[in-house]
Amino acid sequence: MSEIVVSLPDGSELSVAEDATVEDVAYEIGPGLGRVAVEGVVDGELVDKAAPVHDGAEIVIVTDQSGEYLRVLRHSAAHVFAQALQRLHPEAKLAIGPPTDEGFYYDVANVDLDAEDLDEIEAEMEEILEEDLPIERELRPREEAIATYEDNRYKREILDDEAAGEDPVSFYVQGDFEDLCQGPHVESTGDIGAVKLLNISSAYWRGDEDEDTLTRVYGTAFESESDLEEYLTLREEAQERDHRKLGQELDLFSIPDVTGPGLPLYHPNGKKILDELGDYARSLNLDAGYDPVETPHLFRTELWKKSGHYDNYVDDMFLMDVNDEEYGLKPMNCPGHATIFDQKSWSYRDLPVRYFEDGKVYRKEQRGELSGLSRVWSFTIDDGHLFCRPEQIEQEVNQVMEAIYEVLDTFDLDAHVALATRPEKSVGGDEIWEQAESQLRSVLENQGIDYDLEPGDGAFYGPKIDFAFEDALGRKWDGPTVQLDFNMPERFELSYTGEDNEDHRPVMIHRALYGSYERFFMVLIEHFDGKFPLWLAPEQVRILPISDDQLGYAHRVKNELGDFRVSVEDRSWTLGRKIREAQEDRVPYMIVVGGDEQEAGTISVRDRKEREDQDVEIETFRAHLEAEYEEKRIEPDFLDE
Amino acid sequence: MSEIVVSLPDGSELSVAEDATVEDVAYEIGPGLGRVAVEGVVDGELVDKAAPVHDGAEIVIVTDQSGEYLRVLRHSAAHVFAQALQRLHPEAKLAIGPPTDEGFYYDVANVDLDAEDLDEIEAEMEEILEEDLPIERELRPREEAIATYEDNRYKREILDDEAAGEDPVSFYVQGDFEDLCQGPHVESTGDIGAVKLLNISSAYWRGDEDEDTLTRVYGTAFESESDLEEYLTLREEAQERDHRKLGQELDLFSIPDVTGPGLPLYHPNGKKILDELGDYARSLNLDAGYDPVETPHLFRTELWKKSGHYDNYVDDMFLMDVNDEEYGLKPMNCPGHATIFDQKSWSYRDLPVRYFEDGKVYRKEQRGELSGLSRVWSFTIDDGHLFCRPEQIEQEVNQVMEAIYEVLDTFDLDAHVALATRPEKSVGGDEIWEQAESQLRSVLENQGIDYDLEPGDGAFYGPKIDFAFEDALGRKWDGPTVQLDFNMPERFELSYTGEDNEDHRPVMIHRALYGSYERFFMVLIEHFDGKFPLWLAPEQVRILPISDDQLGYAHRVKNELGDFRVSVEDRSWTLGRKIREAQEDRVPYMIVVGGDEQEAGTISVRDRKEREDQDVEIETFRAHLEAEYEEKRIEPDFLDE
Repeated sequence: MSEIVVSLPDGSELSVAEDATVEDVAYEIGPGLGRVAVEGVVDGELVDKAAPVHDGAEIVIVTDQSGEYLRVLRHSAAHVFAQALQRLHPEAKLAIGPPTDEGFYYDVANVDLDAEDLDEIEAEMEEILEEDLPIERELRPREEAIATYEDNRYKREILDDEAAGEDPVSFYVQGDFEDLCQGPHVESTGDIGAVKLLNISSAYWRGDEDEDTLTRVYGTAFESESDLEEYLTLREEAQERDHRKLGQELDLFSIPDVTGPGLPLYHPNGKKILDELGDYARSLNLDAGYDPVETPHLFRTELWKKSGHYDNYVDDMFLMDVNDEEYGLKPMNCPGHATIFDQKSWSYRDLPVRYFEDGKVYRKEQRGELSGLSRVWSFTIDDGHLFCRPEQIEQEVNQVMEAIYEVLDTFDLDAHVALATRPEKSVGGDEIWEQAESQLRSVLENQGIDYDLEPGDGAFYGPKIDFAFEDALGRKWDGPTVQLDFNMPERFELSYTGEDNEDHRPVMIHRALYGSYERFFMVLIEHFDGKFPLWLAPEQVRILPISDDQLGYAHRVKNELGDFRVSVEDRSWTLGRKIREAQEDRVPYMIVVGGDEQEAGTISVRDRKEREDQDVEIETFRAHLEAEYEEKRIEPDFLDE
Repeated sequence: MSEIVVSLPDGSELSVAEDATVEDVAYEIGPGLGRVAVEGVVDGELVDKAAPVHDGAEIVIVTDQSGEYLRVLRHSAAHVFAQALQRLHPEAKLAIGPPTDEGFYYDVANVDLDAEDLDEIEAEMEEILEEDLPIERELRPREEAIATYEDNRYKREILDDEAAGEDPVSFYVQGDFEDLCQGPHVESTGDIGAVKLLNISSAYWRGDEDEDTLTRVYGTAFESESDLEEYLTLREEAQERDHRKLGQELDLFSIPDVTGPGLPLYHPNGKKILDELGDYARSLNLDAGYDPVETPHLFRTELWKKSGHYDNYVDDMFLMDVNDEEYGLKPMNCPGHATIFDQKSWSYRDLPVRYFEDGKVYRKEQRGELSGLSRVWSFTIDDGHLFCRPEQIEQEVNQVMEAIYEVLDTFDLDAHVALATRPEKSVGGDEIWEQAESQLRSVLENQGIDYDLEPGDGAFYGPKIDFAFEDALGRKWDGPTVQLDFNMPERFELSYTGEDNEDHRPVMIHRALYGSYERFFMVLIEHFDGKFPLWLAPEQVRILPISDDQLGYAHRVKNELGDFRVSVEDRSWTLGRKIREAQEDRVPYMIVVGGDEQEAGTISVRDRKEREDQDVEIETFRAHLEAEYEEKRIEPDFLDE
């Protein structure tokens, strides 16, 4: 059968069979993409994945997350913004306007915009959506393109760099507007259901601080008004919950300039939460037969050369010279654990050997990429490594998965699971890969876990199962992982004596329940909006005396509550203000004590959901606290019916 | 009154009043030394500290630890070794022979010695002691000294370097032996009560590996045979208990070359002990109102310049360049804690604010000085810092001292306490120093603590109380410390708002309960000879089935013992061998189960003190374990009675 050629969003071309469908194209790009394709955009038109493609077609594969189509639509919205801008401010010069995960932006020069301008531009954009202008691709001679941008150095540079040598050059046109662009785009401005401009900032041309400062306008777009409304509500909620904002309000952590970027300091409130998380992980690990180990942060880089990390990670490593030898801060904990395993000789009866460590690792992200706790230089992995015989993989992964699901349940988080299998380039023989992958599939299937298969997306050293947390706002975050490794045991020449008295290589499994404490803490702060479950709350109970006369009684109550994190509000405020303050601090329980309570030896209990009960026996409340703490309940529930 | 001049062991001279006593000389050297002087050696003769000195006298101050006199005696013993060597091996060439903390050594060339030779030399040394030869100083013209050592390049180099320009040159002579030496020495070889040669190793001349390899003979000497006997017994015991030896035998930690020198890896057995220590310190800290914090290991060196550590510690710091800025691993935790304090504004009502962190710090010791866990590059301080008002010092130090004494009691350790007061150069005014020192004295006196006063030995930034642990073998080790600091709050411009609404500087107190985990762990390993109390033991109970038929029952017993660290011995060994192995591993309790026990549903309990009881109810034993664990009892005591 003869072949046809289609072009892809990155500008590349692909040969496919004459009768190929969108789905075939997706599989041709990669088996992982084929598996998740649900629709396609062919020449700007959304079609079913079973639809045929034709020679010369521009193809965008739409996955189940619809991410690709939305990106196309937002790219078109960026053009609509530029069109509206030029209608209202003809002097403005366009630089670049790409789609992003959350919408789009456009960098422009020679124009000064304020919030009022944005409102006007947004109104004009809505007008253009109404006009339902067809968006069409035009190929123009290079010389004509250069002439078009005689007065625009940014577009000329794009012609010289990204589009170097192209002739003809690709433009997209809609009504009175044209833009140098590779596309693809939706068919018509009317396909963009809703647009919103979000804010203005500034940016350097090409991100280079020696270059021109441009005005960057952020916006977003959706297929429908209702999608936009939903997004805006979530966005507002997410901004309210931003962990950097709450981190400061609740005094959880700081990243001061004097100590260094990306190097968080945990304040008492934050560290109390981290300690509870650490104790919980430790108890799960001990229950699962993991042994604690501890390794330093500084190592000779010899170790990283031995493990192979040096070749791949050297740019991210903090390196230094010590007595004319190179040392580095650890970017991961596994080589240290492999070294500990290697200090002893093992029999097949000893396996699996399981180590865990809350190990702080250091990776040198670009300063511009650092952000709160989500991108840092130093973060602590709740890192576990186990060494087992190949036939033990299933039982071990099974156990890890159970622990991960217990964690998800404890924190009321949903998760998406993906199984990534053997890539083209890999180490290890067919037999071990097949055995390993079939054991992983068997774990997922026996536990009835709904998962995405990502064929070919495993690491070169082994297949893996990845989790993405989904938080209360439906956002997804990198989470725990279970990663098989046939390579490191080889590089460290790890071995155990089999039943046959011969030396064998163990399989190594990397796993984490949280992922990193920093990332997980960030997710929890935003997921719970700072309203931590009792067991995590840095302050669990605050006692509010109605007047200073009850201060003594308040302290007696505190003592009777034992080891809980209880404080007494001793500032001379009105009760109303004391309650407001405790609400703002998200304290799960407030105990109000006045003259009546003192006389009766009882307490009034309030919770942060603003429910209240009076005449409570201290012992009754304490017993409840113990149960709520032990069971790690999500919400304060003493006042439930 | 006119003055006389005396000379000191380091070769320096000192002017003192004509009628000065040994004690006066000691005070003249330093108030700290004056306080602890008990005797003196004047021209080689041991005298009372009240004895007068004369012009030109050679004075050695003897403190209450008698360290100085013993060093003098051991220096003389080194000469006796050299004399015996030259009588038996006249071809031998002497290099240097100084006293050490444990005895002396002498580096020699041109002679090949084995253990048998040492026995002969030792016998000859005893002969020389018998001969009771007077040891006398002789000043000889420089030319004559050079001629004497025509054939000895080592002594000639000493003449050229250490004794450059001296004329006349100091020799010490005893009978047929003479040595180039500054002294001082005891009066006669008969004053050396007992000598012992310990071992042979090799050493480079001047410690330079490009230089000659010399033979180094180690020996020791005491005033009496009984002192020597006591030392040899303790030495043997100490070698048996050496934490490096036990660390390997009990699989506690390792310091492999591939990961780096001075950077310990803790294996599961070691980490379980560290975790128990950590939990205990945490509970003491939380009880005392300390809040946990966490700081990274990497900081901009700006911080260390601000704190002043950079000037003093830069040579010990691990430094690196990151994006053209200098960063360093933290050599201490205090500047991080001061930075956290500085993130908020404080009122006098909030103070004291108390932070604690198990903070791993990095200090670059010389590789030659690294040794097991006692000298390392990375160590974890159980570090606490509190910020208080000046008048709160006493109450806070009181509380710290109580915690330290609880720790001492828990581990059955004795301690020596020293109060070090204001040195000549110091920061802070008279008022704060007087207030602080009087509060520290008042704590020590009210708690009835026996302490040494070390006037002038405080840090320039504040007075301190230091503890030295004394272990089961009577050896002393650096321990906890309580250190006042008037400087860092100044440098970080820390402040709180006083009752007067003005800004005030808090006082900062540094304190540790253990000191460092590494040092403390080393002390505990050797102090307990690896026989850790139940609560610390990495393996608390081992179940020994008499035959494989009881394996199932053994696992049932393990389950009934709950969360204790229990293992089942499942190797097919004889019971005798199983017991021997458990004894070697220092497991506190062994449970033996055979057919009888299985039938009756009971257990036989053995402890590592080789006591045994049969027909024990599992529940009875479990209840005992809980009590023994909770009360942190030193010895397994289920089988007492």
